[in-house]
Amino acid sequence: MDLKTLHSISYGLYLITSKYGERINGQIANTVFQISNDPPTIAISINKQNLTNEFIKNSRMFAVSILAEETPLPLIGQFGFKSGRDMDKFADVNYKTTTHGLPYLEDEAIAYIEAKLVQDVDAGTHTIFIGEIIGAEVLRKGNPMTYAYYHQVKKGSTPPSAPTYIKSERRSEMGDKYVCTFCGYEYDPEAGDPENNIAPGTAFENLPDDWVCPVCGADKDAFEKIA
Amino acid sequence: MDLKTLHSISYGLYLITSKYGERINGQIANTVFQISNDPPTIAISINKQNLTNEFIKNSRMFAVSILAEETPLPLIGQFGFKSGRDMDKFADVNYKTTTHGLPYLEDEAIAYIEAKLVQDVDAGTHTIFIGEIIGAEVLRKGNPMTYAYYHQVKKGSTPPSAPTYIKSERRSEMGDKYVCTFCGYEYDPEAGDPENNIAPGTAFENLPDDWVCPVCGADKDAFEKIA
Repeated sequence: MDLKTLHSISYGLYLITSKYGERINGQIANTVFQISNDPPTIAISINKQNLTNEFIKNSRMFAVSILAEETPLPLIGQFGFKSGRDMDKFADVNYKTTTHGLPYLEDEAIAYIEAKLVQDVDAGTHTIFIGEIIGAEVLRKGNPMTYAYYHQVKKGSTPPSAPTYIKSERRSEMGDKYVCTFCGYEYDPEAGDPENNIAPGTAFENLPDDWVCPVCGADKDAFEKIA
Repeated sequence: MDLKTLHSISYGLYLITSKYGERINGQIANTVFQISNDPPTIAISINKQNLTNEFIKNSRMFAVSILAEETPLPLIGQFGFKSGRDMDKFADVNYKTTTHGLPYLEDEAIAYIEAKLVQDVDAGTHTIFIGEIIGAEVLRKGNPMTYAYYHQVKKGSTPPSAPTYIKSERRSEMGDKYVCTFCGYEYDPEAGDPENNIAPGTAFENLPDDWVCPVCGADKDAFEKIA
């Protein structure tokens, strides 16, 4: 049984948001799909340990921001690797709200959809939330970010709470790879970090002292060599 | 409420197979996703009217062939636009079977996964089948076919039974578009049908008489002008 087969399943990348009374929260997810045409219905899959899961069960509503390919990694890190239990994830983020008061990203999303919960399914570590669409707007033209693009082009990472998380065991040919112990981002010297002016071929040891994790902003000290 | 938002959700393209006693069947689907890591669990979404739905409920097993980008359109037409109630879809197809006797495509798939059903969820027109993985094999290297690639590059079409089906209303700038009344494939004169030596810019009226629908093989007569 070779679980590398699972790497070939295609996903997008989305911000899922909900609320609990006056509080709002959101998290990154890769599983959003349409279930029915009439009435238009979508489903999402959310880890039971996540605050967003609790919020959706409470408000019985959720919104999906469909992220553009250009979405910056730190924004994905903010929503994908931090918990709304410790902070207000939207504090420094530019967002709007839907008719029902759910936040969506106006700048980074190409479209948003809001749905009212019609069914929630216990699926082990995750809950599948099925929702009827009650609002939807195209915000601008652009390509949706796919999970493959996020990993291959953006060099993004996956938190251990995601079903698709896989521990890396590879060592790059150009030196040791390092993993951010906070968010799971892997620094690969072969790829460098071009978005932050680190050329491909730069060994981790030669990164400037003020370089930080491009996903979650952690210091170099938070990184460990991958054994 | 703009349902064009749903076009930006990312999907793959898969052959889902199952069996009923000695009979086997399969259909194309775009919804396969991982639900949990431990035990490794996936979910699929299948229209209740489809024979494969019935087979999965009976055998409580299903297999997923993850299609390669190169998968020819007629093969997708064979499994996506015909019903196993009328024919044996595998009669002229090269396939192998998993340990549990479920068919998978050895040539067109880059990997297959087989799963035993642990839960089925009634989701209106569709059933969400949740299955624990009991077998999985990578068959070869290659890019998985995405739904976007199927539509944009391969010019593939979607049957009315799929949740993502949308009736086209556009007219191409290079002449009228025609739709195959059998499978829903749209002939766009702007794109032509290069895989079958029809150059871009060829009006439908100028297609050779022996030209057939590249998806399902229907004659020119089966096409209607899109109003």
